[in-house]
Amino acid sequence: MDTVTALGLIAGSLTTLSFAPQVARAWRTRSTADLSLAMLIIFLAGVLLWLAYGVVRGDVAIIAANAVTAALIGTLLSIKTKNG
Amino acid sequence: MDTVTALGLIAGSLTTLSFAPQVARAWRTRSTADLSLAMLIIFLAGVLLWLAYGVVRGDVAIIAANAVTAALIGTLLSIKTKNG
Repeated sequence: MDTVTALGLIAGSLTTLSFAPQVARAWRTRSTADLSLAMLIIFLAGVLLWLAYGVVRGDVAIIAANAVTAALIGTLLSIKTKNG
Repeated sequence: MDTVTALGLIAGSLTTLSFAPQVARAWRTRSTADLSLAMLIIFLAGVLLWLAYGVVRGDVAIIAANAVTAALIGTLLSIKTKNG
């Protein structure tokens, strides 16, 4: 693997995994009032488009990062719609 | 521009612009207790690496999306550290 691809994979891991502590916090506190619902919906739509982009390009890193991110954001959205 | 590149640009616009309502909400309410500090720091680090990746690849879409996102997340982080 070349250095630039490795850089992309590290970048993708960070932006994806960053949502884990946010999901953990929302799960624990059940408090999501400070999270913007519009942000979650627009971000999820964008992530699903990135996923489609990765599938068309056959890019495993983009597919993996965005599939995991979509699952995390979907969880946040579910907690948000239940708890406000 | 080919269809796949257009798909990537639309995806990038959505994931970047999704943070605008979050910044607007935090700016208005000055309440960011439900935002995870770890999420903001790790996400910003990932976005800055994506920016470096875009510069190395010479990819204008990746550079533009991540430069704007970095500014928005930096603003959120600033409000979060001032208001808790």
